[in-house]
Amino acid sequence: MSDAIGIGMLGYAFMGKAHSNAFRKIAYMTWPPPLVPRLVAIAGRDAEAVAAAAARYGYERSTTDWRDLVSDPEIGLFDNGGPNHLHAEPTIAAAEAGKHVVCEKPLGRTAGESFEIWSRVAATGVHHMCAFNYRFVPAVRLAREMIDAGELGEIRHFRVRYLQDWGDDPSLDTWRFNADEAGSGALGDLAAHAIDLAHFLVGDIASVSALVRTFLPDRQVDDAVEAAVEFAAGAVGTIESTRLALGRRNALQWEINAQKASLAFDMERMNELQVFRADGDRARGFKTVLVSETDHPFWEHWWPPGHIIGWGETFVHELHHFLGAVAGEWGVAPYGATFEDGYRAAEICDAMVRSSEGGRREEIAYRQLASSAA
Amino acid sequence: MSDAIGIGMLGYAFMGKAHSNAFRKIAYMTWPPPLVPRLVAIAGRDAEAVAAAAARYGYERSTTDWRDLVSDPEIGLFDNGGPNHLHAEPTIAAAEAGKHVVCEKPLGRTAGESFEIWSRVAATGVHHMCAFNYRFVPAVRLAREMIDAGELGEIRHFRVRYLQDWGDDPSLDTWRFNADEAGSGALGDLAAHAIDLAHFLVGDIASVSALVRTFLPDRQVDDAVEAAVEFAAGAVGTIESTRLALGRRNALQWEINAQKASLAFDMERMNELQVFRADGDRARGFKTVLVSETDHPFWEHWWPPGHIIGWGETFVHELHHFLGAVAGEWGVAPYGATFEDGYRAAEICDAMVRSSEGGRREEIAYRQLASSAA
Amino acid sequence: MSDAIGIGMLGYAFMGKAHSNAFRKIAYMTWPPPLVPRLVAIAGRDAEAVAAAAARYGYERSTTDWRDLVSDPEIGLFDNGGPNHLHAEPTIAAAEAGKHVVCEKPLGRTAGESFEIWSRVAATGVHHMCAFNYRFVPAVRLAREMIDAGELGEIRHFRVRYLQDWGDDPSLDTWRFNADEAGSGALGDLAAHAIDLAHFLVGDIASVSALVRTFLPDRQVDDAVEAAVEFAAGAVGTIESTRLALGRRNALQWEINAQKASLAFDMERMNELQVFRADGDRARGFKTVLVSETDHPFWEHWWPPGHIIGWGETFVHELHHFLGAVAGEWGVAPYGATFEDGYRAAEICDAMVRSSEGGRREEIAYRQLASSAA
Amino acid sequence: MSDAIGIGMLGYAFMGKAHSNAFRKIAYMTWPPPLVPRLVAIAGRDAEAVAAAAARYGYERSTTDWRDLVSDPEIGLFDNGGPNHLHAEPTIAAAEAGKHVVCEKPLGRTAGESFEIWSRVAATGVHHMCAFNYRFVPAVRLAREMIDAGELGEIRHFRVRYLQDWGDDPSLDTWRFNADEAGSGALGDLAAHAIDLAHFLVGDIASVSALVRTFLPDRQVDDAVEAAVEFAAGAVGTIESTRLALGRRNALQWEINAQKASLAFDMERMNELQVFRADGDRARGFKTVLVSETDHPFWEHWWPPGHIIGWGETFVHELHHFLGAVAGEWGVAPYGATFEDGYRAAEICDAMVRSSEGGRREEIAYRQLASSAA
Repeated sequence: MSDAIGIGMLGYAFMGKAHSNAFRKIAYMTWPPPLVPRLVAIAGRDAEAVAAAAARYGYERSTTDWRDLVSDPEIGLFDNGGPNHLHAEPTIAAAEAGKHVVCEKPLGRTAGESFEIWSRVAATGVHHMCAFNYRFVPAVRLAREMIDAGELGEIRHFRVRYLQDWGDDPSLDTWRFNADEAGSGALGDLAAHAIDLAHFLVGDIASVSALVRTFLPDRQVDDAVEAAVEFAAGAVGTIESTRLALGRRNALQWEINAQKASLAFDMERMNELQVFRADGDRARGFKTVLVSETDHPFWEHWWPPGHIIGWGETFVHELHHFLGAVAGEWGVAPYGATFEDGYRAAEICDAMVRSSEGGRREEIAYRQLASSAA
Repeated sequence: MSDAIGIGMLGYAFMGKAHSNAFRKIAYMTWPPPLVPRLVAIAGRDAEAVAAAAARYGYERSTTDWRDLVSDPEIGLFDNGGPNHLHAEPTIAAAEAGKHVVCEKPLGRTAGESFEIWSRVAATGVHHMCAFNYRFVPAVRLAREMIDAGELGEIRHFRVRYLQDWGDDPSLDTWRFNADEAGSGALGDLAAHAIDLAHFLVGDIASVSALVRTFLPDRQVDDAVEAAVEFAAGAVGTIESTRLALGRRNALQWEINAQKASLAFDMERMNELQVFRADGDRARGFKTVLVSETDHPFWEHWWPPGHIIGWGETFVHELHHFLGAVAGEWGVAPYGATFEDGYRAAEICDAMVRSSEGGRREEIAYRQLASSAA
Repeated sequence: MSDAIGIGMLGYAFMGKAHSNAFRKIAYMTWPPPLVPRLVAIAGRDAEAVAAAAARYGYERSTTDWRDLVSDPEIGLFDNGGPNHLHAEPTIAAAEAGKHVVCEKPLGRTAGESFEIWSRVAATGVHHMCAFNYRFVPAVRLAREMIDAGELGEIRHFRVRYLQDWGDDPSLDTWRFNADEAGSGALGDLAAHAIDLAHFLVGDIASVSALVRTFLPDRQVDDAVEAAVEFAAGAVGTIESTRLALGRRNALQWEINAQKASLAFDMERMNELQVFRADGDRARGFKTVLVSETDHPFWEHWWPPGHIIGWGETFVHELHHFLGAVAGEWGVAPYGATFEDGYRAAEICDAMVRSSEGGRREEIAYRQLASSAA
Repeated sequence: MSDAIGIGMLGYAFMGKAHSNAFRKIAYMTWPPPLVPRLVAIAGRDAEAVAAAAARYGYERSTTDWRDLVSDPEIGLFDNGGPNHLHAEPTIAAAEAGKHVVCEKPLGRTAGESFEIWSRVAATGVHHMCAFNYRFVPAVRLAREMIDAGELGEIRHFRVRYLQDWGDDPSLDTWRFNADEAGSGALGDLAAHAIDLAHFLVGDIASVSALVRTFLPDRQVDDAVEAAVEFAAGAVGTIESTRLALGRRNALQWEINAQKASLAFDMERMNELQVFRADGDRARGFKTVLVSETDHPFWEHWWPPGHIIGWGETFVHELHHFLGAVAGEWGVAPYGATFEDGYRAAEICDAMVRSSEGGRREEIAYRQLASSAA
């Protein structure tokens, strides 16, 4: 039987539910799990609500003070699913208390804050992961594996757009529209995912030429961002995100055009990868690959081919990956996003804001850690 | 807090995994659950394997004799996910021992066996459900609700096909190819689902004109069935199923053409329903409805709109529904399939065989229970 | 410069427009044409309307008596685009006058009438073609070429449905609803196309088990047909057609499942062929082949790849093919449908009616010509 | 009977074929045509080839000197389908000789050259049209009509990409890769179309932030352009074009997100428009509108609903529109692109190059004609 690891969860709403569900499923769907998650405690602002969440998801105790998680000796993994302004302090404190840490994206509200989190946590030597869960979609991992295997050749274009439409309601009240709590709008919430996928699939972004725009009169944060981008390896493309794309509910769409193949993806049909190969077949065309075969990524955990999975499963894959890293079976990188990756996405987000304000293409300079810690 | 109910599971392979996962998720994803499933015991042929399954899914004990489940006073719900030849005896025994019963499809291997199960179980007064899980796809339920609300008007056509392709391998060895254990091939395995959906959405089937065909030389069971069908309410259409449709992995596809609307569905894109309305809009066309809105069926359990779910979740909905029925919150019918529905599907399957052999259209005569028990 | 051939056209409505457009385009789009069509005369019931059509499409003269076409020595090709009850007598008379003949489908209103047309015309030795234009869709021809080249292997399933929705209007008045003029409804109008494609792609149909149905109260002809079918070569499948499939405007859809590949097609996306190959690629899936490459059928006449063509172009291909046959460059068969093919489709249509009425599977016996004439 | 107008055509290759086909079809498919095109003369570089083209398409005479067209009194409409460096001089000369002029895009190789063409031609008072044929796709016109009717409300986003893949061949030799003859690469060839559609559907572009990139080593012109754009009316979005998008053959794709509706389009499925309406329907989703209904744009010329048309037909619509303008039935604007529109697209193309080179967002200043001539 695998060893157990105590989980301390910050946040009980959207991400709290997604992560808690994942921890529970890992225990029996990924078999045997690298470590068996023991749900020790959950923290949140409202005492009654967090107690209810503990009962629901099976945490042994609940608290309104995240410091209780940090000081809890039974917790080995601190998972931060709180709002953005609560990413830095608790995550750093948990790491400095020797706990492995997972933090929801965006890592910090700015590049500076993100770098601070990364560098402080890296210095502790714990394992860390920024929860860019879309890396853990089977179709996305398959794309990455095809790229790594040289099946695409030189990449010329990457275009990505993350489109949602729930933002067009002036009456909505959520921390996601509060500048201090969220830091930004579509930028940190949606574009950060798009940026990380760009980095995961095509490599470092070298420059951005961006427009960051707020449409609704009294909104404190941006509604949309549009950017033309260059990659260090030579590809060019676009990155877009918006909360005002009517009819698009969770449309994280991307396309790669390369010398030997093109790939395309849409999160609303997350079980499919579009693949075009220049293989000389007279019957040429994009294949709709249903990524659910026994030799496809993550599929050893699931069902017979063709029996598709859902959005929630990306967290099962992600947290299973982190548990494996903690157990020493593999590294967080390169398949998982480390806090360095979280920081790098934030650097791009900041550059987009500067580009939008200054009307200039912004070359990206990524900071390194002083020591060789990672 | 909800009351608990003890679960006894027969079968630890494909369906055992699907049902066990559902019982575990019901406990916290459908909140509060009508009854909290307590995983008491699991039974299977191989002692070591069933013990491992118990450890994995969290059953308190395991056994190689299903009679242990029947006699276990802590078990209130007997869930039969075993091979087809083990549906009748254990299910009847469990019901006669006062346990509520769920049985995988096909209910029995023949209409006769199915009727026997239904009538014997109905006489005990327990709740019973035949596990036609595709009724619990949100898009399928939405279709049913649209029909019930009169949004379609008179239905003229229903065509359904359940296409898979794993059968084209002579070396495969599974109970599903054994005539005695399975009873039939694509007929009971796939066509039964298609037939139940036809019944669920359009009503009673009045006649079938069918071809049942085995392609592989030494195969004991059928590989495919093709049928033209009439419905009691006047619609006509087709029912097809095959294990030899290369490239179709789990393609349960159906289409309804009615006076005021048409609907179309494909299980490989199970989160989508195609809807055409004759509403006079100049921009007329089939809508691709992503069935994941807050006002869509089952969505209260899940994620924000657009964050899709997978095949495994149909079992969460299905078993949650049964627990609700056991708890007295609603009936198994009409949204769940009772054993009567399981019997009726078997009656159609038998008629398809007779039609294929005799070269005649077969009118269906459904048997009723002697008393008014259901 | 190619020789000219005089065209005599019967009918100036839907098919008259489609064929006239094709003859005009052949003269410069298929270059050099096998024969240059010279539009000599057009015949129709209404003197004023047919004169207007002659002016519009460039016929040298018009007439209300089709016998004028038959007796016109300048006409070498008689093209019958009139209503069904005017197929037999004018077509036979034109052939007996030594003119090559094209006749719209269905060839006759019954198998008997169709056989009469075929045998009488075959006896004259002229070239004859039944205008099953969907054989001349590039994607359909590509499918046929793949089959002929052995790329599919043994075919297990063919399912085809021709769905339209204009029939659900009791106020519509057209010869297509008149039993004497049309002979049948969806059967001869739509199912005949589906049947011919089944024959073109998979070979002879061996039996049919059918339901022919009229939904609208005072309609004289059928609205829909549903059939399970067997092919002589062993495949099984379905053939369906209806004028009551709301939202389907010209949806001639078919799918082939074979040992080495599956193919799928929808006339509403006629430039695309779906191709699945069992080629062992980890990235397996149906390709959406845009059939417009320089090495694709008919594409030498058109545009650069990806610049798609329309429904009207199928007639350009079809009549170009017939002119080539008349010019001795190739035969009408096997790519074009001869009158024998027209007769064979009618034999199936009749068998569907018998099957529907008698409730029996109908084995098909095809008649042969007494002599070896074809 | 309509009056005739003499056509003089410059160019006999790709565009020469497309325009000649259109003039021939207009004569009988658009009935009655505003003016009957009489194909008087065609000019091209190679005497033999241009004579063959004249014979093929039915021009009365051919010449290797375009000045012969300009001086020909029987020519009333000069249609310039020659390479880009032959747009300015012949077009201006023809207009100054009193002929109405059509010129292929891009109007000139630079904004300066384009302005020169526009201003010189406008001064003559003839009708002029820049051949942005994608305005004449039925789905594009339907989109425009929906916008004009207020069905979309405020537009927030427009993203467009024109993707082809034929450019990835270093051995290709065409004037399109010659810097002097073409002026630019993907920019003038593909992006110009995208820019004109942006202008046609959303209005003036206010700024561009662009990357113009050449991938192939010895290529004289650009292979791709990526841009973030702002519109004068407030929308933001992206414009992309490339000749290196493997598997995309003629993929002019765009999407509009507005307050009340979203629209999406792909030229490879040009008969379809995707329409999402915020109409409160529980069954919400993008409709696939098959733009072929009797009340849809241009459909009065064609076939019954659902019988789709091809790329070539866009030229029939376009040149029919211009003939109507010449006949005084309507204006070239707003549905057709005037030379002013051609100039404005060139202004954007130039700004994209400046932005790419200077690393700055470029605000667009459009030049006006000195007088009020247009």
